[in-house]
Amino acid sequence: MNRIAIIGAGGWGTALAQLMAAKGKAVSLWGFEKPLVEELRASRENTPFLPGIRLDDAVNVTADMAEAVSGAELVLVVPPSKGMRGVAAALAQTGVQAPLVSLTKGIEQGSGLRMSEILRQSLPDVEIAVLSGPSHAEEVARAMPTAVVLGCPDDALALKIQTTLMSPAFRIYTSPDVAGIEFGGALKNIFAIGAGLSDGLGFGDNSKAALVTRSLVELTDIGRALGGKKKTFRGLSGIGDLMVTCFSRHSRNRSVGERIGRGETLEQVVASMCMTAEGVPAALSAYECARKHHLETPILDGIHGVLYHGMSARDMLAQLLARQPKPESRIKDALIKLKGAIFSPRR
Amino acid sequence: MNRIAIIGAGGWGTALAQLMAAKGKAVSLWGFEKPLVEELRASRENTPFLPGIRLDDAVNVTADMAEAVSGAELVLVVPPSKGMRGVAAALAQTGVQAPLVSLTKGIEQGSGLRMSEILRQSLPDVEIAVLSGPSHAEEVARAMPTAVVLGCPDDALALKIQTTLMSPAFRIYTSPDVAGIEFGGALKNIFAIGAGLSDGLGFGDNSKAALVTRSLVELTDIGRALGGKKKTFRGLSGIGDLMVTCFSRHSRNRSVGERIGRGETLEQVVASMCMTAEGVPAALSAYECARKHHLETPILDGIHGVLYHGMSARDMLAQLLARQPKPESRIKDALIKLKGAIFSPRR
Repeated sequence: MNRIAIIGAGGWGTALAQLMAAKGKAVSLWGFEKPLVEELRASRENTPFLPGIRLDDAVNVTADMAEAVSGAELVLVVPPSKGMRGVAAALAQTGVQAPLVSLTKGIEQGSGLRMSEILRQSLPDVEIAVLSGPSHAEEVARAMPTAVVLGCPDDALALKIQTTLMSPAFRIYTSPDVAGIEFGGALKNIFAIGAGLSDGLGFGDNSKAALVTRSLVELTDIGRALGGKKKTFRGLSGIGDLMVTCFSRHSRNRSVGERIGRGETLEQVVASMCMTAEGVPAALSAYECARKHHLETPILDGIHGVLYHGMSARDMLAQLLARQPKPESRIKDALIKLKGAIFSPRR
Repeated sequence: MNRIAIIGAGGWGTALAQLMAAKGKAVSLWGFEKPLVEELRASRENTPFLPGIRLDDAVNVTADMAEAVSGAELVLVVPPSKGMRGVAAALAQTGVQAPLVSLTKGIEQGSGLRMSEILRQSLPDVEIAVLSGPSHAEEVARAMPTAVVLGCPDDALALKIQTTLMSPAFRIYTSPDVAGIEFGGALKNIFAIGAGLSDGLGFGDNSKAALVTRSLVELTDIGRALGGKKKTFRGLSGIGDLMVTCFSRHSRNRSVGERIGRGETLEQVVASMCMTAEGVPAALSAYECARKHHLETPILDGIHGVLYHGMSARDMLAQLLARQPKPESRIKDALIKLKGAIFSPRR
């Protein structure tokens, strides 16, 4: 696979273009916004989304999707989640036959569909894989060591894509659990908002560690209910991505939570950001999923309450983290109710 | 339990004294170093170990262990791990009958014993529990929300200790898995050194997330081989403590790794620290344990090699994180060899 199309010229798409160009691939990078595409062609720097990285001259930047995918042997699809349905329809229009890899982390609002499922609806006959894991775009563009997971049900195709994308600093594991990989990537953004709320309130590492530990339990419960495999959530695309998103200064979703924790409203935060914080819409979708599957998800519920129902971050975290001492039997009951809770109650 | 003795006047011991004083308990805090005890009595501030916190006037600070434990209904034992055997012998000399809780995170070098096992050898007839989890002393002293796990095989005693120690900002879960809790606390310090090596080399969050994800697998494998329960390593005292230690700027063990990654020697780093980095001796003990149980522990082996055999941090991490692309079958073999690896190889 020597001709690669990349659909989406945000930070991740641009970093992938750089990664593939460094491997000597023929790369086309498609961007939705014409002014961005023009600037990127002219200056070779994606100033809003990946500042400080000079894009390889060999990368063909275009706003014409048919041109981008023409002759491509592999198509990496990485728009914001809310743009995925439009991209899927546009890709179908091009008549593309090459395998697709979705790298977008999100769940469609309303439908609850994963990104690869949206692609599948428009492109029923094309092979579709996914790739996720702890992978800040800037670090990938700077060739810092990164390990990710490629989800693909077809072994032979997985090997081809792995060989195509892998480099010394970009290591790829493979797994057949497409759903688990996609849910890990989408759900961790929600819990990163929760970790940010804790930061914004001035709480410390102890609080955040407790919150993230319990977030992993909820993430796993939700992901399994939706068809993911337990062990996937213990790997790079689950716990690996969750912890880095919750503890990194660079995480957009954590930062949304931090600003809300400091007193801004969701509207103020979203209005001031040029990039998408995928956890914000994902919290709605995940909350709907959790209700549908009758899951107990106190952290998700709290984040949903803060984002969409004016709940105070302090009240939410106080409830979760600092409950009053209770008789052991009541703690036990509470633990039993939290199915799959961190610790089994004492016998 | 209203009279509490605390054995060890480091940061954690002092924070616990503060926590218990805030609950209105009668607290005695024993320190090994007489000058520190004198200064703490006079200034009420533990300048070397917990600067900026004024110790409650009601706390009795003493260098006399018999005085400290006299009349105590609960004894919290929190010396550095290398001081535990001496403390155990001294406690036995006092004839103490009250239950003990060990809060020290470490494994004894040579014997491979857990801290509670060392106490047990000197005090065969006293009840012994353990407490661990993500709990930076300074944050506990400042009443920031913290959640920890009390390991105690006796239900009734666990409830009494839980009630005694718990406060709105210091939440305690209970578990009967004493060994798992102690191994989680001891082993995470080793892997935090590894995370620090990555930081010191200037690697980013992607690298660290991959490293910590795989560290959890090794930690769990070692801990289970030594008698801990799998689910304990998934909880606060396992993954919770591991991730905060690996990602926090405040972690001593991470900081040791960071300095070595930047080029200092272990001797230089240790000589300049007033506090104990428990991961340094624990790496020796854990390495011995891993060999004894025939475990595959590439990250532990690398950290052990860097600390004790002059291996370069860059070589170690390059081997772990940025292997060259390989034919799929060899990746598969490598994954199968890594028992319990992050992702199962593709079928």
